[in-house]
Amino acid sequence: LNETIAMTVRLGLKRIAFKDFHLALNSSPEAIREAAAKTREAGLAAYGCGVVYMRNEAEVSQAFEYAKTAGMEMIIGVPNHDLLPLVEKKVTEYSLKIAIHNHGPGDKVYPSAATAYDLIRDLDPRIGLCIDIGHTQRLGQDPSEIFTKYAKRVHDIHIKDVSASTAQGTTVEIGRGVIDIPKFLRAVIKTGYAGTLALEYEKDEGDPLPGSAESIGYLRGLLGGMGINA
Amino acid sequence: LNETIAMTVRLGLKRIAFKDFHLALNSSPEAIREAAAKTREAGLAAYGCGVVYMRNEAEVSQAFEYAKTAGMEMIIGVPNHDLLPLVEKKVTEYSLKIAIHNHGPGDKVYPSAATAYDLIRDLDPRIGLCIDIGHTQRLGQDPSEIFTKYAKRVHDIHIKDVSASTAQGTTVEIGRGVIDIPKFLRAVIKTGYAGTLALEYEKDEGDPLPGSAESIGYLRGLLGGMGINA
Repeated sequence: LNETIAMTVRLGLKRIAFKDFHLALNSSPEAIREAAAKTREAGLAAYGCGVVYMRNEAEVSQAFEYAKTAGMEMIIGVPNHDLLPLVEKKVTEYSLKIAIHNHGPGDKVYPSAATAYDLIRDLDPRIGLCIDIGHTQRLGQDPSEIFTKYAKRVHDIHIKDVSASTAQGTTVEIGRGVIDIPKFLRAVIKTGYAGTLALEYEKDEGDPLPGSAESIGYLRGLLGGMGINA
Repeated sequence: LNETIAMTVRLGLKRIAFKDFHLALNSSPEAIREAAAKTREAGLAAYGCGVVYMRNEAEVSQAFEYAKTAGMEMIIGVPNHDLLPLVEKKVTEYSLKIAIHNHGPGDKVYPSAATAYDLIRDLDPRIGLCIDIGHTQRLGQDPSEIFTKYAKRVHDIHIKDVSASTAQGTTVEIGRGVIDIPKFLRAVIKTGYAGTLALEYEKDEGDPLPGSAESIGYLRGLLGGMGINA
């Protein structure tokens, strides 16, 4: 957590989502509050957590309790389909959003944004999507089109680039892969999306800062060319 | 040198200029050839060296011999004014270019591109300028205007960003400073400049990779938004 906070601050970012390896889901309320305070003191908003798998009722309860204790706005998660009624109940009870995350080819729960959307469209609108543009591209779909199609229900975006538009595609530095990032950012801006563009950089696990920095730089440069200071 | 080559390759760059701390100017011809071969084998073109100070005839001779032995195209340098006739003779003898580098406020030799241009305008056209956009901005000048003014004589560009348009400005990650980088790149593209955009990243001396990566990412993103894959 300390390392991640330091890297995020060094990159000049303002928002962060915790993964369980930053702060375990079964942490005590004290530990969660302490981590949240440390994050705030570093100048970062811990807006969410994820990707959180919810395979039973206890995991749903744990996720909502964790997010509430940390003062987060949302859970980025993968609840089993049969748990969606409970998730809807918790969303109301906790006044929290949940963004359901697509994991691409081979995923049995939510391979695509469409899989999730079809199951949540009639539920509380606080249940929305986290579009992972890498996994979307790996399905051979155009992330710009998918985002635009579901824009009103998108609560979060995992932005990244991937090496191929197939199941074999893996994360690369933004700008070095096959995703049309300029097209995607233009689509996001066009809809007036007010959520977070969250970098998810899964390459260089032991040394993620340079590739993350290059990726953030790419996005800033692209936005800078559009006259947007990010 | 090994570390610098590794970082440059990791950033996906293709060209490099040596500074004396990568390969000392008084290295033996064998050491220079070995370093040049190592650089080529890593997939990089060592196109130049610099900034090389030339304060006497021996330093001029040494610089040209070094650049020729390494197979470089140019020297990025600061020759004392009274050595320019000798530099012109060497340019002809060695068929090498020299790009005279401006160092901004406080520099006694070439504070601005204009100082250099006024002294070289009637010399062999292989004697040109390396526009350092940071030092130009630190003089309170607009790098886009200065570049455009002297474009036909610009052989190299040191691209960077700085924290202020005054002598107190220091290097920061590209995109975080005060230089209008989108305007500058558009000016460079408009002239059809065929040289190198060489990142000179003087921040984080002990740990330059993340800030260099962010800077390179920024340039790629900006170019990506213009439809240029760099």
